[in-house]
Amino acid sequence: MMDRLSAALREAAGEEGARAIVLAGAGPAFSAGHYLPEMVGASPEEQRQVFLACSALMETIRVLPLPVIAEVRGIATAAGCQLVAACDLAVAAETARFATPGVRIGLFCSTPMVPVSRAVGRKRAMEMLLTGDFVDAPTALDWGLVNRVVPEDRLEAESQTFVERIAEASPFVVALGKRAFHRQAGLSVEDAYAQMSEVMCGNAVEPDAQEGMRAFLEKRRPRWTQGAS
Amino acid sequence: MMDRLSAALREAAGEEGARAIVLAGAGPAFSAGHYLPEMVGASPEEQRQVFLACSALMETIRVLPLPVIAEVRGIATAAGCQLVAACDLAVAAETARFATPGVRIGLFCSTPMVPVSRAVGRKRAMEMLLTGDFVDAPTALDWGLVNRVVPEDRLEAESQTFVERIAEASPFVVALGKRAFHRQAGLSVEDAYAQMSEVMCGNAVEPDAQEGMRAFLEKRRPRWTQGAS
Amino acid sequence: MMDRLSAALREAAGEEGARAIVLAGAGPAFSAGHYLPEMVGASPEEQRQVFLACSALMETIRVLPLPVIAEVRGIATAAGCQLVAACDLAVAAETARFATPGVRIGLFCSTPMVPVSRAVGRKRAMEMLLTGDFVDAPTALDWGLVNRVVPEDRLEAESQTFVERIAEASPFVVALGKRAFHRQAGLSVEDAYAQMSEVMCGNAVEPDAQEGMRAFLEKRRPRWTQGAS
Repeated sequence: MMDRLSAALREAAGEEGARAIVLAGAGPAFSAGHYLPEMVGASPEEQRQVFLACSALMETIRVLPLPVIAEVRGIATAAGCQLVAACDLAVAAETARFATPGVRIGLFCSTPMVPVSRAVGRKRAMEMLLTGDFVDAPTALDWGLVNRVVPEDRLEAESQTFVERIAEASPFVVALGKRAFHRQAGLSVEDAYAQMSEVMCGNAVEPDAQEGMRAFLEKRRPRWTQGAS
Repeated sequence: MMDRLSAALREAAGEEGARAIVLAGAGPAFSAGHYLPEMVGASPEEQRQVFLACSALMETIRVLPLPVIAEVRGIATAAGCQLVAACDLAVAAETARFATPGVRIGLFCSTPMVPVSRAVGRKRAMEMLLTGDFVDAPTALDWGLVNRVVPEDRLEAESQTFVERIAEASPFVVALGKRAFHRQAGLSVEDAYAQMSEVMCGNAVEPDAQEGMRAFLEKRRPRWTQGAS
Repeated sequence: MMDRLSAALREAAGEEGARAIVLAGAGPAFSAGHYLPEMVGASPEEQRQVFLACSALMETIRVLPLPVIAEVRGIATAAGCQLVAACDLAVAAETARFATPGVRIGLFCSTPMVPVSRAVGRKRAMEMLLTGDFVDAPTALDWGLVNRVVPEDRLEAESQTFVERIAEASPFVVALGKRAFHRQAGLSVEDAYAQMSEVMCGNAVEPDAQEGMRAFLEKRRPRWTQGAS
């Protein structure tokens, strides 16, 4: 399932005209994480395959040239909560709930903590990890785990608002920016500036940047010509 | 005093059946930090001993296999505020107050800033450090310096709620998770995932993980058999 | 203009008795970032000059021995938003607005994202960067991009409150603390503690620290004798 999701994401990103991806659950939950029956009694090698597939999925989201938006209805727990944190943006229904409850079943949420602790801060991440308790949607918004909380019947419209806004920009520039964001995220300020200055110089001479600035000065809509690649 | 606190923490962690440690002030304050009379006129070597003892205390909290919960009544200032930030979780009375006021007495809170700036973010840390002004408990909660703010007469009960919740989990898994959290905290996302995937694989084949997953699937309480260390 | 601003900041920092710098817009906006007409049709070398001047300005703010306070009226966008995030403290009028809208004109805000993402967190930074939408002043306060939001007619008074508070401290210690803050910001907790313990030991034996602690114990105002440099 994780392999298929990774493949589906890559496929969607390759579709003609695709500009952003909305990731939503098909059922009442966003995702409850790993399928436990397959992990009970599994050999170390089988366990490793499961976690490698999971990390590959998260990495796929991070390296895709398109923004990925988590659309969260119901619960997002363990690797499901990680999935929300790993997406570029997240919108949640008022009734959505988030948890990293692995500690309660003997399997600490060590990989989920990577993006979750970077989204919500250390004390809050530690609370989620040590208690496994649910965080409701307004709290997730307050902590920066999600970007929007809306009534459930407005959830898809809210994701769509993000998609449409992103679709107005140059796909080349969005891809360049997303990649740059992840490159600088873990660096010292000095190193981050050094790398981002190069990115900025490279960006500024590209056709879409020149067109975008001209259009802005001429008070007209830009005509983008560069693809995400 | 700091040496004795470090020793007491290690001793408490070694007690049969200990599952979490609550750190509270014996008097009206949580901690006002260093004892200044011993630092006035002290030789460089004596000063160094003081700061080494302080850093050793903070490091003790970080490497203990049990979660340490700060229970804050009254003020927590300078190294006392650092102590709150260095604990895994923190609960505070509504009347608690926090500050890093070293700048006002000529001794900038340079070691306190390490965990404080990582808890509350850069702009807020800079404000605390440059002004030395108090931050009240609701603000500390809003900024992520503490996890709960409650009326003073409910303070101990609130810490106890965390302790009891943590005590339901496997001590082995809590220790593994706390150690993993600190290992990944400063790393890039890639490095953090690489290390945490290994932790997760190792965790999943342990007896307490197998038991925890089985118990969950069988809808019964797990029986943990592994100890902390 | 950026070169002149860098020079003016260094000059102000060198003035006899200067203790903090307030950076405010002369017109209705704080700053709308780069002057686009000079970037349309510019050669790669000219573009590079512009971005180097911009990074040099941000670096100047960071290495100045005095705190720099952004006083934001109107809009702060792109490199103007970066400027707010790069300052040590920031106060904003209720009507101030913040954005990193480069994506909309084909020039992703890759250098602005360095301090902005470190101030507001990853999900919120990504939202600002991918949508380019404005964030109002209360939201900027909630996210930690600014330290205070006040009615427009109280804006200068609010900056002044910070200045006066900072001016009560030893300029030597403020400079030492600001430098220390930036040194430890990107490090692992272990490395940060190792470096800050050294800073603390060095600070404690300085005349202004000894005087500050003595004055505190004697309940009198300290008399600082050490300058910034």
